Amino acid sequence: MTKVGERYLGVNPWNVVENSFRPERGRVSESIFSLANEYMGVRGYFEEGYSGDRLLGSYFNGFYEETPVVQPAAYKGLISHSRFMINTIDWLYTRILLDGETLDLAKSKFTDFQRVLDFKTGTLYRVFIWQTQSGKLLKIAFWRLLSMVEPNLGCQRITLTPLNFSGPLKMQVGLDFSPLQEGLTQNFWSCQKRRQPENIVAIVGKTNCLGHQLFSAFTLKHEATVTSRLVEDEKYSGLDLGLELSEGQSIDLDKIVTNYADKSPNTPIQEVWEAGMNRAIKNQALTFKTALEQHASYWTRVWQTSDITIEGDPENQQGIRFGIFQLHQTFHGADSYSNIGAKGLTGEAYNGHTFWDTETYCLPFYMFNNVKAARNLLEFRYRTLPKARERAQELDCRGAFYPIATIDGTEGCGLWQHASLQLQVGSAVAYGIWHYVKICNDDDFLYEQGIEMLIEISRCFASRGQWGSKSGEFGFYGVMGPDEFQMMVNNNCYVNFMAKKAFEFTLRTLKTMEISCPELLSKVKQKTHLQPDELKDWQHMAGKMRLPQDPISKVYEEHDGFFDMPHINIQDIPVSDFPLYRNWSYDRIYRYDLIKQPDVLMFMFLYDQEFPEEVKRANYEYYEPRCIHESSLSPSIHSILAMELGKYEEAYNFFQFATRMDLDDYNRNTREGLHTTSIAAAWMNIVYGFGGMRTDGEKLAFKPGIPQQWCSYSFRVLYHDAILCVTVDQVNAEFKIISGLAVTVEIYGKLHKIDLNGIKLAITN
Amino acid sequence: MTKVGERYLGVNPWNVVENSFRPERGRVSESIFSLANEYMGVRGYFEEGYSGDRLLGSYFNGFYEETPVVQPAAYKGLISHSRFMINTIDWLYTRILLDGETLDLAKSKFTDFQRVLDFKTGTLYRVFIWQTQSGKLLKIAFWRLLSMVEPNLGCQRITLTPLNFSGPLKMQVGLDFSPLQEGLTQNFWSCQKRRQPENIVAIVGKTNCLGHQLFSAFTLKHEATVTSRLVEDEKYSGLDLGLELSEGQSIDLDKIVTNYADKSPNTPIQEVWEAGMNRAIKNQALTFKTALEQHASYWTRVWQTSDITIEGDPENQQGIRFGIFQLHQTFHGADSYSNIGAKGLTGEAYNGHTFWDTETYCLPFYMFNNVKAARNLLEFRYRTLPKARERAQELDCRGAFYPIATIDGTEGCGLWQHASLQLQVGSAVAYGIWHYVKICNDDDFLYEQGIEMLIEISRCFASRGQWGSKSGEFGFYGVMGPDEFQMMVNNNCYVNFMAKKAFEFTLRTLKTMEISCPELLSKVKQKTHLQPDELKDWQHMAGKMRLPQDPISKVYEEHDGFFDMPHINIQDIPVSDFPLYRNWSYDRIYRYDLIKQPDVLMFMFLYDQEFPEEVKRANYEYYEPRCIHESSLSPSIHSILAMELGKYEEAYNFFQFATRMDLDDYNRNTREGLHTTSIAAAWMNIVYGFGGMRTDGEKLAFKPGIPQQWCSYSFRVLYHDAILCVTVDQVNAEFKIISGLAVTVEIYGKLHKIDLNGIKLAITN
Repeated sequence: MTKVGERYLGVNPWNVVENSFRPERGRVSESIFSLANEYMGVRGYFEEGYSGDRLLGSYFNGFYEETPVVQPAAYKGLISHSRFMINTIDWLYTRILLDGETLDLAKSKFTDFQRVLDFKTGTLYRVFIWQTQSGKLLKIAFWRLLSMVEPNLGCQRITLTPLNFSGPLKMQVGLDFSPLQEGLTQNFWSCQKRRQPENIVAIVGKTNCLGHQLFSAFTLKHEATVTSRLVEDEKYSGLDLGLELSEGQSIDLDKIVTNYADKSPNTPIQEVWEAGMNRAIKNQALTFKTALEQHASYWTRVWQTSDITIEGDPENQQGIRFGIFQLHQTFHGADSYSNIGAKGLTGEAYNGHTFWDTETYCLPFYMFNNVKAARNLLEFRYRTLPKARERAQELDCRGAFYPIATIDGTEGCGLWQHASLQLQVGSAVAYGIWHYVKICNDDDFLYEQGIEMLIEISRCFASRGQWGSKSGEFGFYGVMGPDEFQMMVNNNCYVNFMAKKAFEFTLRTLKTMEISCPELLSKVKQKTHLQPDELKDWQHMAGKMRLPQDPISKVYEEHDGFFDMPHINIQDIPVSDFPLYRNWSYDRIYRYDLIKQPDVLMFMFLYDQEFPEEVKRANYEYYEPRCIHESSLSPSIHSILAMELGKYEEAYNFFQFATRMDLDDYNRNTREGLHTTSIAAAWMNIVYGFGGMRTDGEKLAFKPGIPQQWCSYSFRVLYHDAILCVTVDQVNAEFKIISGLAVTVEIYGKLHKIDLNGIKLAITN
Repeated sequence: MTKVGERYLGVNPWNVVENSFRPERGRVSESIFSLANEYMGVRGYFEEGYSGDRLLGSYFNGFYEETPVVQPAAYKGLISHSRFMINTIDWLYTRILLDGETLDLAKSKFTDFQRVLDFKTGTLYRVFIWQTQSGKLLKIAFWRLLSMVEPNLGCQRITLTPLNFSGPLKMQVGLDFSPLQEGLTQNFWSCQKRRQPENIVAIVGKTNCLGHQLFSAFTLKHEATVTSRLVEDEKYSGLDLGLELSEGQSIDLDKIVTNYADKSPNTPIQEVWEAGMNRAIKNQALTFKTALEQHASYWTRVWQTSDITIEGDPENQQGIRFGIFQLHQTFHGADSYSNIGAKGLTGEAYNGHTFWDTETYCLPFYMFNNVKAARNLLEFRYRTLPKARERAQELDCRGAFYPIATIDGTEGCGLWQHASLQLQVGSAVAYGIWHYVKICNDDDFLYEQGIEMLIEISRCFASRGQWGSKSGEFGFYGVMGPDEFQMMVNNNCYVNFMAKKAFEFTLRTLKTMEISCPELLSKVKQKTHLQPDELKDWQHMAGKMRLPQDPISKVYEEHDGFFDMPHINIQDIPVSDFPLYRNWSYDRIYRYDLIKQPDVLMFMFLYDQEFPEEVKRANYEYYEPRCIHESSLSPSIHSILAMELGKYEEAYNFFQFATRMDLDDYNRNTREGLHTTSIAAAWMNIVYGFGGMRTDGEKLAFKPGIPQQWCSYSFRVLYHDAILCVTVDQVNAEFKIISGLAVTVEIYGKLHKIDLNGIKLAITN
């Protein structure tokens, strides 16, 4: 672990402040200052136009276009098209002209720049003083918010204050469909013109391949004397404004924007127009002030349930709040059509695709902060079950094969070795159902939707797995596990273990349903054509699942033959070789005992309480030195396990960049977007790592500890409708219900009933 | 083995005859009736124009163009461009018009069709009677030959005989650069016009990407009254002819064509024009008759050295002669700029690329028929050594990494797993040098060129191989062996064994050179910067090379873990699933103990005498039932080993389609071109299989046998400047020198001196 952060932004408990603008860091800041409300998101780009390097990104969750994937050869199971989150409309479009000069921070002279992302109000604020070539000083401030209350609503306020002059100013405010898709350097939009109603400027864009439509409209509110003229272009609708400024007097221009993304392709445009316009007319009644108040009060409630405090470590205090803020922005369960892309709504890397990160990294955050959101993440998988069934057929499997990367349920990964060989999404979905149902007690979901997925996932595994000729055991051949540095192996331990768990949970659930809901059972049996022989097979396969383990050292072998893989000392790899994907011959990556991210350690984290401490220790000590953490999801899992094993310093070291991965640009790629799913890992790093929470046993359990660097910390979890607050200092851990009924949890191995009075225990590390 | 041939063509000892034309088989016949002279080749297409399905293919050996390879992601070592054998000029271009009707066998009415490929004269003849809509009967015969004596020379004769009329006829004879590249459906040519000299029509084409140039010219010879007009178009130069026909009188039109391919890109066109025109002027002096005589006498000499006779099996008699004919056509060692593509010069599948087939399958044919050709095949590798050095660097290796598929020495395979993981060309080159030098006693080649390749190949292996953490042995991780149904494995037995052999031969050669040619040794050491430590390393690596073998069964494990691969009974795979590459999910192919072609058995064939019979038997009996022979190179190797193991019926069954793979279209893909390198395997099937020849020991050895289906057979091998003829009937085997000095060979384990009198021994099977 040789990662070094780059401290640039101000450290404050409730916001991120940038006090000067550095163009070379422009894209990083664009990512960090992103706003979203699950429905849509915008990067923190300069809305007034900027001719320097930037990514003008504006996205809608689960809203996509399609592109052909060229394969060097066409084989069965390789995808021919991939769907990606499309870059949409610049609905913040603004241009400001003074004395014939157009404002452009890449060229214009300016001072007193400041940009602030405020976690309490969920707003982005930016201000600077423009010095025109003619010597005029114009102070310009921009606010923006994406309403957490009205998903279609975005608001922008522009405040203009002439500091040393009075006179005319020209502006354009509009809606612009011309942004390019970053990776493809292509625009996918065409726009049809409609008659504009009074006071509302509107446009509808349609994607060229799939015919998805996006409606956008705005009303401009202000109290100034302004002339205004409607301007329409091929991909643009907007107003050209003429303003008269008076020295020292501020003018506010408020743009109330309504965006409506129609997610069924080729809807008649009239329907889209009407649906959008109805929302726009409703939103027109709002002022910037009321919209902001509603929005800010939503955030107040969020912090009541979800805040984490850290005393004595302002960097991590800021980092974890930034993370919690971003997770809520990206997804809070408004519907099951959305999911969580690897970069959330902050960039186009990974194409907006959802991976197994959702169930293994993000789901716990939602289970303990927002149960509806957790359920909706799983409903997304249920909604896309038909597509997973189709995918299984493409891969000569039965049941449902969940795609490794997807935006709408179809496989989106063009690299066949990932798309055809990685099975961990199916087992992650089964794990997620188990985990969610266990913690959130949602048997309805399990019996009505979960079981159908479980049957189809088990069925897929039964058809994809095989029996070893020599071992006589069951397992998966030709797979890639979570460790992507071993491309095509047999009996990856994670894949096998998780499949065994999926089989067992499916069988257990079917058994329970026999007694608790026989009608639902018979319904799902009928729907899935479940055969008695299949259950016998699954039982047999689970029982004979291959999990190779060295009998003396107790180390699980990551896959057949891993222990013989040629050794390389990670310390001997020159720093300039990283990232290896870019600098090493592609095949070379796969020929060492080098691992990219936890694999054996991952299932030990997910089913922590099934493994004795000495087994976890042996595996940690074998695998940790071989891991290069080329996935940003990796360090937190190591930190959590290190903490459990009493390796406190190591645990803190791994944690160090978890909360600030993006704020300090540890991976040097925040410019492409935030590591949204890694943020969930940072949350786990505190709650599971330092708080010692474990959620895989019979009871919710805690073994709190604290890094010596901290005075105290606290976190909150929603559990059985109560908000449980855990506060830990260097001496004690206090458990207290701050809302809701008492709950029973296990602390240091003993059961305790926690109520509003709370209890305080001495910590043991 | 469920392959079934389709007998369609007539069975004759010295030619292939097609007595009717079936359009749906048109492409198959085009492949079979291909002509070539190593320098150039043409498929047996209808030169008079044909609007039905066909591949008008006209190729020049080692003459290529480039196309981008699109990869789903860019990683180090993946190629961005691939070079392919380009489809060039239709230099046989002819059009015949009568009463306003243009001859086109897809539309015209015709009778008495016959097409004959004659092995003795090396000519293609075609004849039919055209019945025009106006009721006229015109008999038309076409001859063509590609001179084996003058590489640039092609000749065409068209004989016209009006059967029931007299009157005018229009014709076009020309040179046409408009043929498309089959797979890319694209034409890569642009032509620059030059002033046409007297009596010669000429054109130069230039490829669009690489700027390779091809000159073509013809002179028309005839004794008829003909009006003629030069016609030039964008990619065409030719003559429009007017003829006057008299009933019953034949007219011969002879087109003497000169083609000159300039293989260095962007030569000034004037140079190309002059070089081509000088040849054209020289060839102009020839008549069709003299050209044919020279050409036919070449073929007479070929048959004296290379003929194989089979009494009592006309099908295989024809098949093996067809094969020998095609091998000599494709390559006979005129220069070292050419090699042998998987389809020779008969089609565009495999892009004209050369694989390891050259050294492991084709080289023995040339070593025993045409020593100069054998040497030139190896010189090709020497000539392309600098490119193999560059390729090694791309793959993070040292030394020289020979490409898996190439036309000019650069890697041409766009599938990274083959291009990056298959190491068998390097070891095949080392094997080829060893084999050739041993048989042909060419120490000069070894010490002046071979050793440099050997050093660089060994160096590459030393850098690519690794030490097993557990085994402590040396081997290759992340490789694909000859068996392409196991994609990415560790310690493939073939790869390891052949690398061991390469190391050992390199070290042995260096040792010999210390005594026999120290100056050459010091020269090569200097040139390659060879370090003493490297030799120690190679010695150590060879000594500790991992060759996993079951101690009880003596079966070598194809790679680490192969014995545990899930079993599938080949008989249980539905016939409709074949070829598996097309019908199975891509990953599924790689998850069984299913092998595509010999792998362990392959190195046992190449180094036959190093393995005791019981070891060969154990391995044959384990691997043969697991092999589906999806490579056309596979059955012959099995046949040869089966014969050695006394499995005579099995040996004959595997042989059955070896000689007639294309004549009877066993693989249903002869339409794409001939399986040229498999033809070499058919030759080995007779000489090594039935003749029991072994070339890997101290002496040339024979253990002749004979299939019970045959009366007798004979073959000839060129050995130490003598032609040794071996004739075997059901009782005896006769060995006799028919030209040259006596040679000593081993027969059934005993040494015999063979001279012009020959010896006769009873056969033992």
